Amino acid sequence: MERTVTIDSNGLSLFGIIHTPETNSPGPAVLMLHGLGGTHIESHFIYTKTARALASRGITALRFDFRGSGNSQGDFMNTTPQGEIDDANAALDFLMSQPEVDRSRIGVLGLSMGGFVAACLAGQRQEVKALVLWSAVANMGELLDSNTDDMRLAQLQSSGYVDLGGIPLSREFIEQAHQIIPEQQVKQYKGPALVIHGSNDETVPVEHAYRFKNALGDQARLMIVDGADHVFSSLEWERAVINETVNWFKTLDTAPVAR
Amino acid sequence: MERTVTIDSNGLSLFGIIHTPETNSPGPAVLMLHGLGGTHIESHFIYTKTARALASRGITALRFDFRGSGNSQGDFMNTTPQGEIDDANAALDFLMSQPEVDRSRIGVLGLSMGGFVAACLAGQRQEVKALVLWSAVANMGELLDSNTDDMRLAQLQSSGYVDLGGIPLSREFIEQAHQIIPEQQVKQYKGPALVIHGSNDETVPVEHAYRFKNALGDQARLMIVDGADHVFSSLEWERAVINETVNWFKTLDTAPVAR
Repeated sequence: MERTVTIDSNGLSLFGIIHTPETNSPGPAVLMLHGLGGTHIESHFIYTKTARALASRGITALRFDFRGSGNSQGDFMNTTPQGEIDDANAALDFLMSQPEVDRSRIGVLGLSMGGFVAACLAGQRQEVKALVLWSAVANMGELLDSNTDDMRLAQLQSSGYVDLGGIPLSREFIEQAHQIIPEQQVKQYKGPALVIHGSNDETVPVEHAYRFKNALGDQARLMIVDGADHVFSSLEWERAVINETVNWFKTLDTAPVAR
Repeated sequence: MERTVTIDSNGLSLFGIIHTPETNSPGPAVLMLHGLGGTHIESHFIYTKTARALASRGITALRFDFRGSGNSQGDFMNTTPQGEIDDANAALDFLMSQPEVDRSRIGVLGLSMGGFVAACLAGQRQEVKALVLWSAVANMGELLDSNTDDMRLAQLQSSGYVDLGGIPLSREFIEQAHQIIPEQQVKQYKGPALVIHGSNDETVPVEHAYRFKNALGDQARLMIVDGADHVFSSLEWERAVINETVNWFKTLDTAPVAR
């Protein structure tokens, strides 16, 4: 079953959809975090498909739009990495309060900037028992710096933001992106992780996956998708990533993972 | 006010969001049709922003996901141009049945493939009194042919579909795309039209806008956005396109347009 939900985050209404399996007893659940400029649906509907695949395998899934994104309230100009982490915390609380959900079996999935947020959330919240990172950003400050040319610097100076294809990154967003470091924060996380990345990712280089693997050590399994781009834009890559992810989260189904 | 709605189209449940202004008397309304691989939100949330801008100016807006797209039911493998036209007809009927809506003041907005559908719908349904096309496809068969290389032909031969970045175009989709010609169908439409296109659109060349203008003659006003890409990916282009569109639809507000 799929139903629309509203999540309150510091007074902003966030739009979400929760997918619940057809069982009566409380079961495992996964929180899904989208990327920068993305939505609860994501490219080629990969989040819709993943949520439906999880529910069909007995796992509740919640996908939602961060403040200023998609159908949620707020202006992106006021969005910051900490704001997205706050939203993820609110969504995690919301998910755990659902009657379908066993609070001891919670997983988090994040794509790109959503992976940044997922890594930080897993480091901060002991309730997170399983972590999957897709094309995740290990260090946003370095990534932004490598993509910043003189034109963008001039725009930031003159207008107070960088226009990333219709998505305005404010000065505060960029400053926080240099202070909150997922590859460091994730070290507080003691559960298992699955790190998936395309070898040809031109948005977030595959090196970020290796950095997460280094930070997590034996806790993490690494899956490099040969030839894949940032959002796994082929039916074959998509199928491989969804299957691997759902099968991996199925371990939540049997028993709480020790941490 | 924004509320989630479900639209039935030939037994498939389509996901939609309707934005209604804060007035009591029935008023004008606009149906929004998304592109191929797009959703009711569209790139950099331009459909969310447009719907909110319309509602703030007294115009109800309905945006929804075509079958197999976004949050709607269905598999994209079974989506065809005629299927999307059927969905648009169902959504138009749904919109006209809402108490907030004056059935004599209906507009349609379509982006890219959604513009293909909008042009056909306007040609078929006399209820459409105002038409706005953004980066719209005037002739899909020609566009597909110009983008089809040997690799794609081989994939179509072997698997029965072309994988467009995770969006499968079936043989039937491609066949219908050669038979249903928006620049011809739109000639049945007798109301006013606004045709907006970026001069640097690399997905649907700006030539398609000129073909719509030729088909519509004096009914159509043409707005070429200098330097803009397919989805108007900068805050400046986005603002210009939304403002022009909302102001133009405001003409629906005063009186039904003759046809």
